[in-house]
Amino acid sequence: MPAGNLLYAQSGGVTAVINATASAVLHTARTRKVRVLAARNGILGALGEELFDTSALTSAEIKGLAHTPGGTFGSCRLKLKSLTEDRAKYARLLDVFKAHDIRWFLYNGGNDSADTALKVSQLAAEFDYPLTCVGVPKTVDNDLAVTDCCPGFGSAAKYTAVSVRECALDVAAMAETSTKVFVYEAMGRHAGWLAAAAGLAGTGKDDAPHLILFPERVFDEADFMAKVAAIVKRVGYCVVVASEGIRTADGRFVADAGGGKDSFGHTQLGGVASHLAGRVKDVLGHKVHWALPDYLQRSARHLASKTDLEQAMAVGRAAVECALNGQNAVMPVIVRDADAPYHWHIDIAPLSRIANHEKTMPKGFIRKDGYGITTAARHYLLPLIEGEAYPPYVRDGLPNYVVPKMTLVRRRLPAWNG
Amino acid sequence: MPAGNLLYAQSGGVTAVINATASAVLHTARTRKVRVLAARNGILGALGEELFDTSALTSAEIKGLAHTPGGTFGSCRLKLKSLTEDRAKYARLLDVFKAHDIRWFLYNGGNDSADTALKVSQLAAEFDYPLTCVGVPKTVDNDLAVTDCCPGFGSAAKYTAVSVRECALDVAAMAETSTKVFVYEAMGRHAGWLAAAAGLAGTGKDDAPHLILFPERVFDEADFMAKVAAIVKRVGYCVVVASEGIRTADGRFVADAGGGKDSFGHTQLGGVASHLAGRVKDVLGHKVHWALPDYLQRSARHLASKTDLEQAMAVGRAAVECALNGQNAVMPVIVRDADAPYHWHIDIAPLSRIANHEKTMPKGFIRKDGYGITTAARHYLLPLIEGEAYPPYVRDGLPNYVVPKMTLVRRRLPAWNG
Repeated sequence: MPAGNLLYAQSGGVTAVINATASAVLHTARTRKVRVLAARNGILGALGEELFDTSALTSAEIKGLAHTPGGTFGSCRLKLKSLTEDRAKYARLLDVFKAHDIRWFLYNGGNDSADTALKVSQLAAEFDYPLTCVGVPKTVDNDLAVTDCCPGFGSAAKYTAVSVRECALDVAAMAETSTKVFVYEAMGRHAGWLAAAAGLAGTGKDDAPHLILFPERVFDEADFMAKVAAIVKRVGYCVVVASEGIRTADGRFVADAGGGKDSFGHTQLGGVASHLAGRVKDVLGHKVHWALPDYLQRSARHLASKTDLEQAMAVGRAAVECALNGQNAVMPVIVRDADAPYHWHIDIAPLSRIANHEKTMPKGFIRKDGYGITTAARHYLLPLIEGEAYPPYVRDGLPNYVVPKMTLVRRRLPAWNG
Repeated sequence: MPAGNLLYAQSGGVTAVINATASAVLHTARTRKVRVLAARNGILGALGEELFDTSALTSAEIKGLAHTPGGTFGSCRLKLKSLTEDRAKYARLLDVFKAHDIRWFLYNGGNDSADTALKVSQLAAEFDYPLTCVGVPKTVDNDLAVTDCCPGFGSAAKYTAVSVRECALDVAAMAETSTKVFVYEAMGRHAGWLAAAAGLAGTGKDDAPHLILFPERVFDEADFMAKVAAIVKRVGYCVVVASEGIRTADGRFVADAGGGKDSFGHTQLGGVASHLAGRVKDVLGHKVHWALPDYLQRSARHLASKTDLEQAMAVGRAAVECALNGQNAVMPVIVRDADAPYHWHIDIAPLSRIANHEKTMPKGFIRKDGYGITTAARHYLLPLIEGEAYPPYVRDGLPNYVVPKMTLVRRRLPAWNG
């Protein structure tokens, strides 16, 4: 058995398959006889010395995590700043690592987490502490550099495409006497990857979604309304998919325009879909409905993409192998070999190429008129939602999701009040 | 081959399995060598003499309808009034029936449709026109009398329970530094059946959903806020499921309170979830998120309940058999023989016992404190979401939903301008 322990932590928004990555990490480490501690709620737990001992998990529990959404060890939203600004925090991390004989640190997250993992590795080197830091890719936002795609995105993309196809069939059946315009709000504050995935729901000219609103394009209400009106006239109804991050020419988020106070002076929370629906009603007079799936779109393990699941597990396995091989300050990434049939393999990239870079959607993925996706986008996106990977169901009709009871290891350091 | 044609029409909101009922109707009629015409957009198409000839559908298309959401022949929201008030419409229906030799009329819908089918049968008798009228049960609202449950409800219930369990796992993972209160809005203007189904997502005291708001109970904001605060303190987060139809003591819909005008004077569409989320933020200061699945919950064929699908097809088959046996003014209904394991059979009930009755949720289904479901509710609901009935997927990762091209039969009457 190698000396020392491996620490696994995850940060940022969870996904339908981040537990699958954790499952692969635990399984691979076990076969290599390495003990894994898992930080409770990500880097917060690492700082606070709240570390789960995963040795107590049964093999069935580890296997079950692969089909369970959410993040079983918890996650957090906490970005560490530069080594200078947040030196106390980085130093504390090293103290915790030393106290628990952490020799390998796996950090699962997005751009920020890649940056943190890189900085931790730099500080360890500075102090001559033998530590191997490996990033693990994850984010429904699909905005990590280098990797072909990000585990978590494919399943959210599949949920989006399937849901839009389904509700469009509903709207089509009722449009003559009921809802004529339907607005679906997709996650994506900076990049329209999930909104683009909705484009997979249709292939013909008049198939839903009829209009996709990307944060990469300026939202022009008058142009949008003209298009909605024309589509309702031609098709009988119009299904719109809007990224939460769309902005008007002055740079303001459309979602913010919808907020404010209601007639009682109470906070009215914003939202792109509800705002657009209200405007369509005001301007065009059509009956409108809208949907805001919110966290449902990133936790829908019941509709996970098999491709996404396989990649989520592959990066987990590869991360452990990298770590145990002493490959420091790297991240396993997905490399696309071919679109159709889709072939991919895992490569190892330096964190320095990933940290603080953001992959935006290529210009060639958005149709010239700005309201749909191109063939190139379709070729990129389709393989990522391919295949189904259903969770097992128990007799009561619900997925058999696994929520293991876990215990924290005993603290060895004074409490941290950073 | 029996003389005459069968007319199939559907009305009201569509469901994930109403096409499965249509599929069973078409298949059964075909084996009995009866030609089926299908009204375009429900009773509107019957009035307007817009009748699809289903003879042109292939067997594969009919089979495919069983796994396709939406309503392939269309539906509408149009309630016929009494025979006196809407006599011209009823007379027009008889004219259309005569012109196309309709001898059997199958009307798929909720309470209103059962009432319409009953009145059509009465008028036909008055005019000595030989017509057999059969209602077919359907509604995600689950509010039809006599039948144990309504096809369409079980699948929407399964979607609700699974989605709430999934997003609760997401919230749990992030609550320490992110969203602490999550509000999920369920359909149900008058009865809380779908909100109740969310209760299946958890079994333990602190399992989500922590609070369910039923339209059957008066919404008391102060009491609600106290409960949310206590749950966040004890559990770390709180998942709320709210029926769209909840009201305050003065009888006003909470959803309406959330509407009004935004800061630009634009219409701000209401909604229970966004309103409650805003209030939680104002009163308790917690970070909140909310979801409004809207039509997604009734069109999610990808997550249909196998029980629901089987019942949807069984009522379709039985309706054709009833009609061809000359059982007039009846509806096939589902009778529960046992809860666990669930056994049910189809019975035939007179439309007069169903039309204009509304099945409300039994008082014994809501917990004494008003915020959850009882064991009795659980025993009733669980069998309805049992089993999975996945649609086939094509290689591109999307369900292979079937949208047949159909042609209308040639009109034989002057246009109708009622």
